[in-house]
Amino acid sequence: MSRGRRTVLALSGGIGGAKLALGLSLVLDPANLVVVANTGDDFQHLGLSISPDIDTVMYTLAGINNPVTGWGRRDETWRFMEALEQLGGETWFRLGDTDLATNMERTRRLTAGDTLSDITADFCRRLGVRCRVLPMSDVVVRTRVKTGQGWLDFQDYFVRYQCAPVVEDFSFAGVESATPSRGFLAALADPALRAIVICPSNPFISIDPILSLRGVRDALRTSAAPVIAVSPIIGGQAVKGPTAKMMRELGLSVTAATVGERYADFVDGYVVDDRDAVGLSLPGVEIRATKTLMQTLDDRKHLARAVLDLADELSAS
Amino acid sequence: MSRGRRTVLALSGGIGGAKLALGLSLVLDPANLVVVANTGDDFQHLGLSISPDIDTVMYTLAGINNPVTGWGRRDETWRFMEALEQLGGETWFRLGDTDLATNMERTRRLTAGDTLSDITADFCRRLGVRCRVLPMSDVVVRTRVKTGQGWLDFQDYFVRYQCAPVVEDFSFAGVESATPSRGFLAALADPALRAIVICPSNPFISIDPILSLRGVRDALRTSAAPVIAVSPIIGGQAVKGPTAKMMRELGLSVTAATVGERYADFVDGYVVDDRDAVGLSLPGVEIRATKTLMQTLDDRKHLARAVLDLADELSAS
Repeated sequence: MSRGRRTVLALSGGIGGAKLALGLSLVLDPANLVVVANTGDDFQHLGLSISPDIDTVMYTLAGINNPVTGWGRRDETWRFMEALEQLGGETWFRLGDTDLATNMERTRRLTAGDTLSDITADFCRRLGVRCRVLPMSDVVVRTRVKTGQGWLDFQDYFVRYQCAPVVEDFSFAGVESATPSRGFLAALADPALRAIVICPSNPFISIDPILSLRGVRDALRTSAAPVIAVSPIIGGQAVKGPTAKMMRELGLSVTAATVGERYADFVDGYVVDDRDAVGLSLPGVEIRATKTLMQTLDDRKHLARAVLDLADELSAS
Repeated sequence: MSRGRRTVLALSGGIGGAKLALGLSLVLDPANLVVVANTGDDFQHLGLSISPDIDTVMYTLAGINNPVTGWGRRDETWRFMEALEQLGGETWFRLGDTDLATNMERTRRLTAGDTLSDITADFCRRLGVRCRVLPMSDVVVRTRVKTGQGWLDFQDYFVRYQCAPVVEDFSFAGVESATPSRGFLAALADPALRAIVICPSNPFISIDPILSLRGVRDALRTSAAPVIAVSPIIGGQAVKGPTAKMMRELGLSVTAATVGERYADFVDGYVVDDRDAVGLSLPGVEIRATKTLMQTLDDRKHLARAVLDLADELSAS
């Protein structure tokens, strides 16, 4: 790696992205890591401003994420939800007692005029997260899903209907006028940028909202730093979540190649699982095969190192 | 009691009033009991619409009140508050995990346009409360306390400053234009009214807001049903809360007589503790001495019966 090139910018959705972000935070000086989280999943519920991907990234980096659910905090309790159910409230979106505090305090501060960027930075500091976590934008962007039963708000599709409706298309309401958050723009323009990492998150609903923000895709195309994507497809399957189901419904083959092609205009390197590397090639993209399944902490660190190694090789060449 | 006179209307603040309301609910057919709770204590906090006295009455009648604190639910947990504190949120007003659900769902429904009356009725039904609990008004009234350090919002005085400031006066913002809730008006006009009970609540901050609503004091003065007050002062002391401290600061003697005089223009009967009855007389008011301290469930029922007996005697005479 070039001397002075230190900052790593990772673009992430929820669980899979957060795992790699954790790996990166453990193999880098955390001060050199900036994680930008998708906010297309954000929504209003029970009067609260809920940011699922920011929280998953933040909780994961703080070591307080719930490894069983993939969202929320570990050692969570559900007394609020139980009492809410008793009173006839809406309980389809689960909010644990401690996770609720995050959403309440975020909502209070947003209402008071603070930005999501500032609130997230404060929460991270208080939770002991040493790298920077940023929302992709401080402007509201809302992912909607076109399905056989019409357009659905994302969380209706994702949680209420458990991804059952067949997807046809996606839209990111508000994205046309949404600028990336100031910290995201600063990271993209950082002359000390060592790499931009596209985490192994759902390409349609986690990464695409970020890429659709004004100027982001162009910034990736023209960045002096290498852009490295990690495939969310392992052995022809998605590890978790609806990625594979969506790909099938959209008529796409469930392969690392399909995802790679979506990113081919801006990535320099593509890290895929050993099982998916056979015969894979993308014009102008350096492919690197390794073990990408992240079950242990060592797996996360291994993948993070593989990503950084590829980036540094591409910088040196 | 006159045949057909069945409805008992009780005006209540928090803990002391709720205890008597519970007693009344146990010695009456609950269908014949209407409890009107003070809403001057209500306030907005963490984006929530909080109604402390309604909830204390409701929880008490549902048998789920916290007997230790005098507010909130029993078997409460505090994980939300702990997590909120970790994130730097405001924790001076304690909201337990299950109590929070009440406040969240109330806020959601108020925002959706439901009345506090309807919401309270639904909550009571779901919690198994068989008598009617009503807010004194569906219009916002806010108690303010004039102190040596200026006017304070009630909950700032009451919770944040723990009643430490010396009180000089009270105001009930919005009360001039606030009409009693529809159910409260209906109960006042109910031809089957057997008694109106002024519960042993703080006269300044629990009962006065109710009395100050447009038309209420006149309705009590002219009601065909007997109006019976119960003294919150026992043996020259308040059982709980700042009543005695307030009386001293206002230059009033801490006696059952002082409280009785405040109500003398509209009460027909006044139930005081045996210890406070000596020499007590109020023109035109029948005094009844009994044990008024409510430590056990039997105490609550005993006091409720004493109140109803006095009312029925006055009706018959």
